[in-house]
Amino acid sequence: MSKRGMTGDLAYRRVGGVLARLIDNGTLRTGDRMPSVRELCRRERVSPATVLQAYAELERAGLVEVRERSGHYVRARSLATLRASGAGGGEAPRTLRPDAEPTQVGVSDEVARLLDQAADPGIVSLGTSVPAPELLPLAELERAVTAAARRDPYLIGKYSFAGGHPGLRRVLAARFATLGCEAAPDEITITAGAMESLNLAVRAVTRPGDIVVVESPGYFGVLEIVESLGLKALPVPGDCGHGPDLRALAQALEDHPVKAVVLVTSFSNPTGSCMAPERRGELVELLADHGVPLVEDDIYGDLYFGAERPRPARAWDRAGEVLYCGSFSKTLAPGLRLGWVAGGRFHERVRRLKNITSVGSPGPAQAGLADYLSTQAYDRHLRRLRRAFAEQVAEMRAAVLAHFPAGTSASDPGGGCFLWVQLPAGVDAVELQRLAAERGVGIAPGPLFCPHGNYRNYIRLGCGSPWSPRIETAVRTVGELAARLARPRVRGRVAG
Amino acid sequence: MSKRGMTGDLAYRRVGGVLARLIDNGTLRTGDRMPSVRELCRRERVSPATVLQAYAELERAGLVEVRERSGHYVRARSLATLRASGAGGGEAPRTLRPDAEPTQVGVSDEVARLLDQAADPGIVSLGTSVPAPELLPLAELERAVTAAARRDPYLIGKYSFAGGHPGLRRVLAARFATLGCEAAPDEITITAGAMESLNLAVRAVTRPGDIVVVESPGYFGVLEIVESLGLKALPVPGDCGHGPDLRALAQALEDHPVKAVVLVTSFSNPTGSCMAPERRGELVELLADHGVPLVEDDIYGDLYFGAERPRPARAWDRAGEVLYCGSFSKTLAPGLRLGWVAGGRFHERVRRLKNITSVGSPGPAQAGLADYLSTQAYDRHLRRLRRAFAEQVAEMRAAVLAHFPAGTSASDPGGGCFLWVQLPAGVDAVELQRLAAERGVGIAPGPLFCPHGNYRNYIRLGCGSPWSPRIETAVRTVGELAARLARPRVRGRVAG
Repeated sequence: MSKRGMTGDLAYRRVGGVLARLIDNGTLRTGDRMPSVRELCRRERVSPATVLQAYAELERAGLVEVRERSGHYVRARSLATLRASGAGGGEAPRTLRPDAEPTQVGVSDEVARLLDQAADPGIVSLGTSVPAPELLPLAELERAVTAAARRDPYLIGKYSFAGGHPGLRRVLAARFATLGCEAAPDEITITAGAMESLNLAVRAVTRPGDIVVVESPGYFGVLEIVESLGLKALPVPGDCGHGPDLRALAQALEDHPVKAVVLVTSFSNPTGSCMAPERRGELVELLADHGVPLVEDDIYGDLYFGAERPRPARAWDRAGEVLYCGSFSKTLAPGLRLGWVAGGRFHERVRRLKNITSVGSPGPAQAGLADYLSTQAYDRHLRRLRRAFAEQVAEMRAAVLAHFPAGTSASDPGGGCFLWVQLPAGVDAVELQRLAAERGVGIAPGPLFCPHGNYRNYIRLGCGSPWSPRIETAVRTVGELAARLARPRVRGRVAG
Repeated sequence: MSKRGMTGDLAYRRVGGVLARLIDNGTLRTGDRMPSVRELCRRERVSPATVLQAYAELERAGLVEVRERSGHYVRARSLATLRASGAGGGEAPRTLRPDAEPTQVGVSDEVARLLDQAADPGIVSLGTSVPAPELLPLAELERAVTAAARRDPYLIGKYSFAGGHPGLRRVLAARFATLGCEAAPDEITITAGAMESLNLAVRAVTRPGDIVVVESPGYFGVLEIVESLGLKALPVPGDCGHGPDLRALAQALEDHPVKAVVLVTSFSNPTGSCMAPERRGELVELLADHGVPLVEDDIYGDLYFGAERPRPARAWDRAGEVLYCGSFSKTLAPGLRLGWVAGGRFHERVRRLKNITSVGSPGPAQAGLADYLSTQAYDRHLRRLRRAFAEQVAEMRAAVLAHFPAGTSASDPGGGCFLWVQLPAGVDAVELQRLAAERGVGIAPGPLFCPHGNYRNYIRLGCGSPWSPRIETAVRTVGELAARLARPRVRGRVAG
């Protein structure tokens, strides 16, 4: 039966039902103004009398209240009352609940939970590796973006086709040169952050069904990108903190028709491992021998604790086979959503894929970032941020060693903002994540970082926030829970 | 041989080569300051004497000049001189040229050309359907974004996980309700515009290798998304301006294991066709019978010229099988890069795919848009924009009929901002695109809009800009070229 043309009793119940569902599903909240009678008459094609009758019903049900000369407003009340009132006009609420089927796309529930926890202010989120906003030069950056938008008011009104803002691409090329890497500005495509950089770079060199080498353990985002694109992830183990085991990688390249290798060369997530310079040269040579492109994720490279920034593997690349992925989310502002790819000989493909993925990035943000990077401010900020992260990682490491059960060990990274913690053999990290969440603490369990679900007794702890009693308490809580899981036969409380 | 540790003659030539290439590849431009001696000593691990020798060579070659107490700056000179000077130290320039191979990803050269033309201020771009910035309330919108960023300075410093800014999702749900569509705010995922909306929606319901029904002719962006994801596009013809032929669609659903249907229901690109309300209901029912989700692209729905906004097909959906894709790029600001998906029963998948594609959209833009949409300003602006587009489409139509050869016909759309023009049978639109580009005019040739390359004698003309003598001249130019191609045996000038 058509929704239109109903009159009388049916019509007011239908209109009342539509309005009740807007309140039920959270579109309209307590204190929000309800649509006007005139608007509803036009929209629902009913008479004012019908709308008034619908509102009278909603008022009787306690859902809305009338304010003199102003209209109808949502009243505060519980969902249970709402449903019991039957204000929905007899139809079942149409609000859609999350799809309960396992996802096709290979995006795990654990990762979704992690991100939900990160968005929840009630959770101490140690599960994500995100810099705390108070460590970032947000006001300065915001001023640069606003000034750029004022200078060219059309920036927000135009698509940024063709790889992105020319000025930003030039500044990035100049900074890249200081790392020993050469890229013409035209080779660079501006992205919506490292996640888009990785997507575009991987897609530029693969087709669905292809095999892609990943680190194990390695960043879960890469695993999800690979699976969601219908690619097969071939994990290669790490070499005791020195990056991937190159002999294992060479074997994998011999044994399989690998189409790309994706690596975080500096301060890899989650282990914090960092390849020595000579091994970067070896890596690039090995891949060149096999004609396999390297997607180099260098999101943490600027966050070194030592004397010198590690040079990207790209600095050794002579054949254009390294697609370098950068981002400003870990160093400057996650909410800016800007990153970049220097696509090597695949740069034209990367640019075209950007055009059909999100067309271009926002103009004012790109122009503002270009201005900000043209000053000394970014390097000054990075020096401060590196000091802060080095301290925070040290604090976290000390707290883990103090509060976690015997048999726990922790990485000692030379950069980045996270720790990789090995728990005693029996401890199930996924169970630990569940228990910690109940106590208001988020952690990232080890199996997230491996396509085969290994590292069951590992967790990653983010160190992006300044040390605080709240974090100290959270770490102690996780340590206590881990101790309980490590000694399942011991009942009762475990000493802190 | 390692780059490091070279001394004397070799070292100064190497450093000089690095610097020369930065000028050659466009990273440093005339008047830019060159890196300081101190910086180069640190970075390239050479002595100040070596850097000074390198700069002396570059100065002799005319590439840089010294400014008293300030350092070295790039001099204005031609690339030819640069190369002839041999300042590159004997190595070939490493700047990478675009990959000449055909792209794997199915992104056509014609589309890349179209977008390059749109970014070129020397071209009258009739090839894209983009609103002119002067028609958009950019200052008002920018103020809203800036105010939101001031109110919450951390917006730019945080990821926007979990589907996007809650306030924006509520405003969108409320506006959606005025179109007869119900969606809880939780069902909505904020995207980087319609292109990302379409990518996420299609990926949420398909796997590589699946068959997806598309319109023919239909938006080339959809074809490129489908091909780039390793999906197969199955074109279904249109029904004389009334949207897709539903009998042909029913047959396609019978004959093939179709996994999704992607349609622009209102003012389809390029034909401008608009489905009648009863056919929308039929469409939704037909797809529900086959259990096939509809990805509804409603990017032009707000741009109707008639009395009433067409209701989305989603308004007829009871099963959560319609993934509705919206955007603000055609109506408000392309450079804002914000759109949305109401994902129906697939909304959890859409949200997760967003998380692994670009994580979240920028916070200040989302909050600012929410504020802007909460006022009456957007509806006022839309009324003005609709009037402008209706006039511009009428002007363009009149000009085409006046200046194009006999046998030309043009669509008469009820909304949107483009015309679909059928040229006389012999005219090759791709050839016409090439000739028009030589004369400084961009057009979109028909074969772009069909996976089989049909519509060879069609073009799409964008009408997003206020009518002007420059556009009139451009249309006359294309008309003259079309006339010449229509009568290939007639030599000499064709009368306008």
